[in-house]
Formats: sequence, C-alpha cells, structure tokens
Amino acid sequence: MTQNFASDNVAGAAPEILAALSAAAGAGAAPSYGADPWTARVEALLKAAFATDLVAHPVATGTAANALALATATPPWGSVYCHAASHVMMDECGAPEFYAGGAKLVGLDGRDGKITAAGLDAALARGGKGVVHHVQPSAVSITQATEAGTTYRPEEVRAIAEVTHRHGLVLHMDGARFANSVAWLGCDPAEVTWRAGVDVLSFGATKNGAMAAEAVVFFRQDLAETFALRRKRAGHLFSKMRFLSAQLEAYLTDGLWLRLARHANAMAARLAEGLAAVPGVTIAHPVEANEVFALLPDPMIAGLRSAGFVFYAWPGEAGQAGSKVRLVPAFDTPATAVDAFVEAARHHAR
Amino acid sequence: MTQNFASDNVAGAAPEILAALSAAAGAGAAPSYGADPWTARVEALLKAAFATDLVAHPVATGTAANALALATATPPWGSVYCHAASHVMMDECGAPEFYAGGAKLVGLDGRDGKITAAGLDAALARGGKGVVHHVQPSAVSITQATEAGTTYRPEEVRAIAEVTHRHGLVLHMDGARFANSVAWLGCDPAEVTWRAGVDVLSFGATKNGAMAAEAVVFFRQDLAETFALRRKRAGHLFSKMRFLSAQLEAYLTDGLWLRLARHANAMAARLAEGLAAVPGVTIAHPVEANEVFALLPDPMIAGLRSAGFVFYAWPGEAGQAGSKVRLVPAFDTPATAVDAFVEAARHHAR
Amino acid sequence: MTQNFASDNVAGAAPEILAALSAAAGAGAAPSYGADPWTARVEALLKAAFATDLVAHPVATGTAANALALATATPPWGSVYCHAASHVMMDECGAPEFYAGGAKLVGLDGRDGKITAAGLDAALARGGKGVVHHVQPSAVSITQATEAGTTYRPEEVRAIAEVTHRHGLVLHMDGARFANSVAWLGCDPAEVTWRAGVDVLSFGATKNGAMAAEAVVFFRQDLAETFALRRKRAGHLFSKMRFLSAQLEAYLTDGLWLRLARHANAMAARLAEGLAAVPGVTIAHPVEANEVFALLPDPMIAGLRSAGFVFYAWPGEAGQAGSKVRLVPAFDTPATAVDAFVEAARHHAR
Amino acid sequence: MTQNFASDNVAGAAPEILAALSAAAGAGAAPSYGADPWTARVEALLKAAFATDLVAHPVATGTAANALALATATPPWGSVYCHAASHVMMDECGAPEFYAGGAKLVGLDGRDGKITAAGLDAALARGGKGVVHHVQPSAVSITQATEAGTTYRPEEVRAIAEVTHRHGLVLHMDGARFANSVAWLGCDPAEVTWRAGVDVLSFGATKNGAMAAEAVVFFRQDLAETFALRRKRAGHLFSKMRFLSAQLEAYLTDGLWLRLARHANAMAARLAEGLAAVPGVTIAHPVEANEVFALLPDPMIAGLRSAGFVFYAWPGEAGQAGSKVRLVPAFDTPATAVDAFVEAARHHAR
Repeated sequence: MTQNFASDNVAGAAPEILAALSAAAGAGAAPSYGADPWTARVEALLKAAFATDLVAHPVATGTAANALALATATPPWGSVYCHAASHVMMDECGAPEFYAGGAKLVGLDGRDGKITAAGLDAALARGGKGVVHHVQPSAVSITQATEAGTTYRPEEVRAIAEVTHRHGLVLHMDGARFANSVAWLGCDPAEVTWRAGVDVLSFGATKNGAMAAEAVVFFRQDLAETFALRRKRAGHLFSKMRFLSAQLEAYLTDGLWLRLARHANAMAARLAEGLAAVPGVTIAHPVEANEVFALLPDPMIAGLRSAGFVFYAWPGEAGQAGSKVRLVPAFDTPATAVDAFVEAARHHAR
Repeated sequence: MTQNFASDNVAGAAPEILAALSAAAGAGAAPSYGADPWTARVEALLKAAFATDLVAHPVATGTAANALALATATPPWGSVYCHAASHVMMDECGAPEFYAGGAKLVGLDGRDGKITAAGLDAALARGGKGVVHHVQPSAVSITQATEAGTTYRPEEVRAIAEVTHRHGLVLHMDGARFANSVAWLGCDPAEVTWRAGVDVLSFGATKNGAMAAEAVVFFRQDLAETFALRRKRAGHLFSKMRFLSAQLEAYLTDGLWLRLARHANAMAARLAEGLAAVPGVTIAHPVEANEVFALLPDPMIAGLRSAGFVFYAWPGEAGQAGSKVRLVPAFDTPATAVDAFVEAARHHAR
Repeated sequence: MTQNFASDNVAGAAPEILAALSAAAGAGAAPSYGADPWTARVEALLKAAFATDLVAHPVATGTAANALALATATPPWGSVYCHAASHVMMDECGAPEFYAGGAKLVGLDGRDGKITAAGLDAALARGGKGVVHHVQPSAVSITQATEAGTTYRPEEVRAIAEVTHRHGLVLHMDGARFANSVAWLGCDPAEVTWRAGVDVLSFGATKNGAMAAEAVVFFRQDLAETFALRRKRAGHLFSKMRFLSAQLEAYLTDGLWLRLARHANAMAARLAEGLAAVPGVTIAHPVEANEVFALLPDPMIAGLRSAGFVFYAWPGEAGQAGSKVRLVPAFDTPATAVDAFVEAARHHAR
Repeated sequence: MTQNFASDNVAGAAPEILAALSAAAGAGAAPSYGADPWTARVEALLKAAFATDLVAHPVATGTAANALALATATPPWGSVYCHAASHVMMDECGAPEFYAGGAKLVGLDGRDGKITAAGLDAALARGGKGVVHHVQPSAVSITQATEAGTTYRPEEVRAIAEVTHRHGLVLHMDGARFANSVAWLGCDPAEVTWRAGVDVLSFGATKNGAMAAEAVVFFRQDLAETFALRRKRAGHLFSKMRFLSAQLEAYLTDGLWLRLARHANAMAARLAEGLAAVPGVTIAHPVEANEVFALLPDPMIAGLRSAGFVFYAWPGEAGQAGSKVRLVPAFDTPATAVDAFVEAARHHAR
C-alpha cells in the first residue's frame, strides 16, 4: 500500500487508459503526426465537454502545454503575469521564457495561491504598455487548481478575465489539475473557462491517471494559428500521435476524468479532515482539489518519514506554527493509505 | 492487411512494449522525473549494449533527441554540418536551430544520403573557425540509417570522426533507425558508434516498435552536463518517466530491438528484390536498412495509389527514369503485404 | 597616401558628416531616444529621396539593420532565401538567426553575386510552405550592390519581387552599398526599391563616409510595427539618437550620399580599367559599384603586399587563372592611390 | 540655458570627445573591426585606470553593454539577481533576457536603490541551485550609481561579492553612471570594482559626455572568451571601431571622465541643497551622484512644467508627502540653470 504522498505524478496509470493504449497499439497502420482518427475524436470529445467550438492539440507534458500555450500569447518582448509561486514561474526551469523567445514572467502575490483581479489591475497600471523601454504586458496565467490546492471560482476567473482583456492581454489557465477543480466545483467545465473569459487552457491528464498526455485547448482560435509549427519545432509533435490521443480519448470518455478526480479529491478531504483533528496540526490552505497543505510539528514530520511516508516540505511563511508539508493523494490512492497516514500522524503527535 | 508503406511511424507498437507499459502502469507509486528503477535499468542496459560507460536520457521523440543533443554540442553562434537532405536539416521545422539558440546548419551534398570525410574536410577548411564574422563550426551530424536508406560502414564513420575531431568539432549520430543499420551491418553497436568516434547518439525506438521513446546517449560525458536542465526547460522531462523507460527497457531486453529491425530490414529487402524484377522499376539507392527508394513510372504510381497503397513521393534528381517514391516496411509488416505491393506493381507495369 | 584597399570601412568619415556631428554636439539639450528634431528630419529626407511615404529607423551598423529588418519579416520557424555568398549568410556570425529567434537562411547560387527570379521560384516550389515539418519560407534578401560588386537592375529586382510576393514572402534589400548602386544606375532610388517591389531596405551610410549610421527603411509600413521594441530590446536604440541622425541628415543633404558614391565608383572603374591592361590580370566580375574583384598571379599578389598594399584574398572558383582578390576604393580614395596600385601591379607583372 | 533635467542623456557631447572624433575622422585608413590603434589605446588606458590587467570591449549603448555582459555570465536556464527597480530589470525591454537566451531576472527589494548582502543571501538560499525544475542562479547585477542616485560603498560591494561568489555566481556592475559614483566616493576605481569582487563592469561614458560609447570591462578574463562572437552576432561590432574608441580614449585621458562627473555631481548637490530649503520639498534619497529625487507638491510640479522645466515623474511609495520627481544635471549643466530651477520651485512653493 502506497505511503507516497509526494505528488500525484508518483502514481501509475488508470486501467482504462492502458486499455485504450493497448487497443491503439494493435490497430494496424494509421496516419502519423495527428492525422489519425483518435486525434480527431479527442477534439470532438473536448468540444462536447466544453460545449463550444475550440482547437485542441495533444502534447505529452504539462510544461510543454504551458510553455507552448504562453508562447502563442506573448511576443519575446512581452510579459506574462502570474502568481509568484506558480508552476510556470517556479517549477519549469524557464520553459515559458525559452518558448516565448525570452519573455519575462512577472510574479504577483496573493493568498492561497490565487492572484486577484484588483492586484492584477494595479500591476498592469504600472506595466509600461506602449513605452519602448519596457517589456509589453501580453498575457496572464492562472493555475487551476492553484499551487496551494485551492480552486478559482467562476466569478473569480471572470473578474481576472475582465481586467486581462481590458488591458488587451490574453488569459491562460494552467489546468494541470483542472479535473480536480472542476470536480470540486461541480460545475460545467465551460463555466470556469471560456464562459468566464479563459482564452487558452492547458488541459491536464497526466497527474490524474494518464501516462503522459495533456491537451492545449484554444477557445480563441486565432491564437492557435502558429501552434502546429511551434509544437513540431519543439519536438513535441508525436509521430505516432495515436498514443497521446488514445489516452485523452479514454480520459474523456464516460466521465473517467471527473471520476478519477473526484476520488483523489475525496481522499484529500479525508486526509485533511483526519489531520485537522490531530493535535499540533494546522491545515494551511482550504482543500479544494486533491492537495493538502498542512503545518506539522517537526518531530511529527521526522516520525512520519522514518515510518516510510514520503512527502515534500514546502516553502512556508514567517511565524507559522510548525513546518509546511504538501500531501497529494492521486486517482488511485486507497482510503486505507490515507487513514494510515492520519493514524501515524496521531501517533507522532504524542 | 496493411497497404501503408508511408513510413515506419504509421505502425502501432510491439506487444512486448505494451506489456512493459502495462506492468509499469500497475506498479504503484514510484519516484517521478527519472528517479525510478525503470530509468536506472535502461541506462544499465544501454551500457551493456554498447559495452562502455555512458550517460543516457530518455525523451519521447526523435526531433527532441536530435535537437537537445545538438544543442549540447554547439553554441548559438555555431554551425552544424550535415547532409543537405538530412532530417535535422529538412524535416524538423528548425528544431535544432531553436534548441541551439539560433545556430546554423550547413548542408553538404553526398551520394546515397551520405556525407564523405573528404567533403566534410573541404567544407571545414572554408568554415571560418576563429574569425569573428563567421559562425563557428561546432558539430557534425550524420544519420544512421541515412535518409536514403543506406548505412554508414564503421570505417566511413571513423573517417568522418577523424575529420570532425581534427577540426575540434563534436560528432552526433541521428539514430532514428539505428537498430536497422546495426541489424544490417551485423556488428556490435559499439563498432559503429563510440569506437568509430561518435560522441553522442540519438538512439531511436519509436520507428521500430515503441510508442514514443528515444534515448540520447552520450559517449563523451562532459557533453551531458547541461542535458538535464535543457530537457526540463524544453518540457521534455516526463513526470511519470517510468513510461518512457519501460518502453526502452523492453526494447533493449532479449534483443527485441534487433529482432524487430531484422524483420523490417528483411521486408525491405524482399520488397526491393521483388520490385527490381518489375519492368520499368529502378531501385534508386542500395537497400541497407528498412527503406526502399524506387523510380516508378507515373502510371504505375497512379495505379498503386488507386489500389489503396499509401507511400510518399520523394524529391528526385534531374534526368531520372520515372518518379522517386519511398516505401518503408515496419517491424510488423507481413510478407504478404510486401508481396501484394510487388504483385500490384507488376500488374500496373503492363 | 592610402595603400589600403581592404574595404571601404577602413576609411575615416566625410567632413560634412563630422561638421554635422559637431553642430549636434553643441546644440544643448534635446529629447533622447529619437524624439529629437534631427531624427524627424532624417525621415523627412528619406521620404523625399524615395518619393514615397515610409517609416525609417536609424541604427549604427549594417548587421543590426539587416538582422532587425529580417526579424520583422520572418517568424522563428521561417526561412530567408538569399545568395549563398551574401553578407547575411556568411559574414554576420548568425545575426539574422539570432534576431529572428532561430530562423533558417537558405543559400541560392547565382552568377556575379546575384540570385535570379527563376532560381528563386524553383527553390520556393520545393520550400515546404504549409507543411508542419519544414521551416516556412518567409523572406527573400538581396544585396545591392552585391558581394561581387555588381548591381541589380530595376527589372531584375522587379522579377525577383514578383516571385517573392507570389509566394507570399517579404522582399528585403541589404543596401550596405546602396548609394554606390544607385549612383552607378543613375536612376531614382525609388526605381530600384519600392517601385520594383522591395518591402524593406537596409539603407547604408557607414561604408560611404559616415562614422556609423544606417537606416532601416520600411516601404511596407505594417512590417515596422514591432521594430521600435525589437531595436530597444537589442540595445540598438541610442539614447543620444541625435548623433546617429545628424550623420544621416548630412548624408542625405545636398546629394552628399550620391556624390561620395560616385567618387568611389569612379575610382573602382579607374582601378579596373588600369588592371585590365596589366598582363596576367583578369577582372572577375563586372564593376558596377565601388568594388573590383580581380584574378591576379600569385607572385603579383605577393609583390603588391610586400610593397605595402592591403587587400583581401577572396574565395574563388575552381579552374580560375590566378587568385581572386577584392579591392575596394572608398569615398575618399584619391586617384593617385589607384594609379599607384595599378603601377605596382604592372611592375610585378614582369 | 537648459531647463531640461529629464536625464543626462538629453545633453550633447563634450568638446574633448568631439575633437577626438574629428582627429579620428581625418586620420586616413585604419584597420576595421577593432584592430586599430585607438582601440588598443583604450584598453591600455582602462588597465591603467583600474590598475590591473583586464579585457575591454567598446560598444555603443549601455543596454548592449549590460545585456552582452550578463549573457557571458548566465546560461539560458540561469537567473540574474538584481534590484527590483534596476535598469536591467525595468528599462531595457528585456534585453538581458534576449541576449541570455531566455534567462530569468529576479528582482530584490532594498532601500535607496540598493540590494543588500543579507537580502541576496536569503534569496539565493531559496534559489534552487542544482534542482532541475528551477532556473539556476548564475549572476548578480548591481548598479553604480543606483537607480535612486545612491552609491555603493566599497565595503557594500565587497559584502555582496562575498555572497555572490560563495554561491558560485558572477558579479556584474552596471556602471552607466560609474564615473559619478567614483567621483563622489573619491576612491580609486579599483576599490569599488575588482578589488571588491566585481567580475565584469559596464563602464559608461554616454551619459557623461560621450556621444555613444561604453566599454564592457572583464576583470575575470575567462568570462570574456565568447564576448567577441556575441558582440558581432548582435550587430554591435562597429566596422569603423575607431569612432567608438576615440570617444573612450578622450574620455579616459587627463581625467576627463572624472572631471565631467564631478561637475554633474556638484550641480546635483547644489540642486538638492537648494531644493531642501524650499518649503514643501523633501529630498527622497541621499544624493551621491548626479541625480536628485525629490518629493514635490503637485502644484509646484505643475508650475515648474508650465515654466518650461522638463523632468520625469518617478514611481513613489505609498504615503509619501508629495509626488516623486527625478532631476538629472549633466556634465554640461550650468549652475545658473540649477539656480533657476530652485528659484522657480521656491516661487511655486507659495
């Protein structure tokens, strides 16, 4: 039984995904580079899921999805506004800068991993648009779910989109854990994306049961015009594209994506509820997806580690009680594993 | 039965590869980003296959492998010498230039898809090394098997490596169809790589039965120092790396890679032999891997296409008899499919 | 008296240019970064000289002018067609590739330094436009005067422009020695630029009497939209812009630019005429600007060098009689210096 | 008499600089691209001024100097730590990112335009060095004089250098107003550069009486190895290099650079002293070079502007009394102009 709560990417892959790959592997010859029927079906499934026309392109990693998407939204002399702790800012080794030809990311602060419309508006007012000495504000990127495991409500996205578009920028959503947020919100995917003003979405599947599959989903189709060339030039166009698309097809079929996300969310909620009752433990952020951030006493952390549990220390804030850790149940984490963690925490609370 | 000879990438995946993915999918939690046991085993298997110490990094596509490898071998103001018709020059939408920060590729001519040591030496003598006005010759890239379906002999690689190293450059081999060449040569992989002077190899598996998996293999380990950062920054570091590595592990186990390649080569030889006996057909290049280039009368081409066969027209030379086409059997092409193609060609020869 | 025929950039600067700089230096405070009256006057003078509306931006070097101009005309995944021996291809250390984010330059052959409309058309037919695997043909760059010292006639430019535009590309002219060609043609500058289909011109002054000043002249104004940001970002926006513009203002006033060019051309013609009469000397290309390419016996070259004359050896062709050298009179080369060279050549012909 | 206090770059050029250019213009033929005697003398003068061996390369603009210098100090996946309000961060339209191939600038806060050794140390402790997901801390850039018109003391530079080098990074100094700081400190230039641990300096002259001339000065010579190729590739290698070098030679001869700086500094001190005595005016930062930042009542600002004075509003801090403006006397600002400004301020204070 897993003791590994380091990330949802330590998990394997869902059986439905594997079955789809198996079928695709044995399906004989098919056109390469995306001219295959799996890829066509993925776009159709995404159109249905989002209840709108769109352009979708599979890629294999979240960093590729984000960096390629942002590159369509900013020139090399542009800037991208995002949360100071976001994945695109901190955890992609400069991929957005690389793909955008040297653009600048501007980090904004905000509680629980979220930027605010007001904070964004103030930053853009100082952004230097139209002045040749300054990089030109070009895009905004928000993360759903955030790096703090919280979820933007549709009205929060709408407010950010209003500011973004009023200043003439493009709104990108990094949806590496998009399924978890949609499952938690219980809304239509459209409500928190294009209807709220999102122009382009990195639609993640890898963290939620796929092997390696994401889709860049363009709601604003003019942004998509250069995507195919950018992807090829980056080495992200798969020759046997069926194997990316088959994963996404299975993921989008019969609600698998939301079913897997609901399970991971439920395990996170169970874990947070359990930990909250352990003396000395504080839950650091609202649990609105499948991540739990908690402040734990250092001896408890040491005890859990020596008992075999795996998780990350996380940058905390000055003055907090205990050390911050991140715990991430995945699509396949059993309740028994969660309960074992809580029990062990309780044991080391003494 | 397949009638698709467009490329070896129209095929699916080998059952052994799929079985390995299936096992990896159900193996529970494992460290992400390459710190998993599959990835460690792949490097060990490559060391054994090449009978040397080396550094190996999995990536998902051949273009990524080539572009990342070349970027370690040339600065942005450098140049890479390659065949004028090579994949890195013509078919990667400028990926090497992108990854190398704007380096220049210099195309050399040469029969049957091969550059020659003498031609390279002459070009490098005019290369402008040390003169600030000129890009600085930095790397040479050869393709094994070549874009003409031919294979460099060990002594040809050695001669090219001698020129390359004498001028202070790095020798890269694009081995998208490396298995086919090694199978055709019947030599140890080492003979045609590091023992002949190759510094870094793009070791392909995708075209030969994998879903999407290649390895960048550094025989000169100092070149590898920046690779991990370059790969991450490009979005080519898989979080669930086990799924790349499991493919490569199966591919390298029990000689699967050479077994699959030998089959594809045999089908190409059968196809070439059959076509050579058809009136009006000329085989354009020696068949030394799994590709057949043939000159066909235009009515024969039209007839084959209307009968459902799929293949590419290929750029030809002035004055040739007929139009050049490329035919590529894959790891799973049955002999009956080859025979059906030959029979159809004979039918349309009348 | 100068014995240096290495290049027109070994010369100093014309007195009129210096006087303009002196006036500008003492003119007190003026707005920086191009919002000064000198810069406004330069654009007005260029509009008058070219008899059309246009957008003009001063920069300090020819390489900056070319690279910035081409970057407005090609995306990073684009290609630029130019003569295989052109300055942008061979002598700018990859600046066009750097500025264009990794675009590819495609070299075309052609006699006397010129590409032909037919050759360009054939190359573009194979260019891969619209196919995701290939860099996308985006721009054509021709050099006026060429690297062989020849001048495109208006009808040659028109034919090249027709092909360029029919394929949807942008036509750039590298006019590092534009004045020399216009002086030699004796036509209006418009005839050989925008009226013939040139979209953007690097208008050179440095080689023809300025200290360091060129202008990027956009006849197609939509191309100019991003120029100011590109120039700033490249460090090519001068804070005290008046000092670039004052040079260009003087250069464009009272026909100074053509007067200086006519002198240099006359010296080249005198040199070519003199050398043609020396036994063993062959003039290699028509002399249609201020450069003379000649084939000289090696002992003559050695003798001239030991007598103190300075000039470059130049890449020649197989089977030529003698070694190719380049001789470049400048705006200030006296006839006596030319005659002394010819006399010395005659002396060493014995 | 000037009323323009917008920047020191609104000024013309010093007579000594002009005289040097005039002499260089008429000096006949000289080798191009920096192989001329002026350039050799500049390097010798810099070695004497800094009392050490060094490598120096002239360029025309401060942005080019900074961006090229930083590019030698960071890989594309690196980060550069600098003050959040510094010129490299805010006012170069992303030139450092462009030249460094997409590196990231990390802004640090600090009073009076200065970063602190302690703040830097804390930031680098979180920098992610060695972790593949994060950009790699590579360089630190400090500005002398700072964007707030203050000057780092030698001991402050030493402390920052200690932290920088302990973390394995390179220390760059943006010396666009280096002369002003050295003149204000009254120390040897070496004391505040290489002896304090600076590895590479952008040595400015343009703002202090030159037309357009800076030198990139490498105290750590291994950093300089790729500079010449980087400069050429950027279009910043002047063919008639003598005209950059002649400016620098005059600037460095007979102490002209410090004489001009002392005058500008004295005018700033006079201006600050005069304004400090005007009711309602607060001097915002210590005046330690040639810039005065002052908080002025809005009606006073309006009055000064309507009287013809030119100056910039500057981003201020919350809660300040009045609006922040920047006033920059130059090398040639007369005392009468300063006094007139103070008198007008006093007039509008009523």
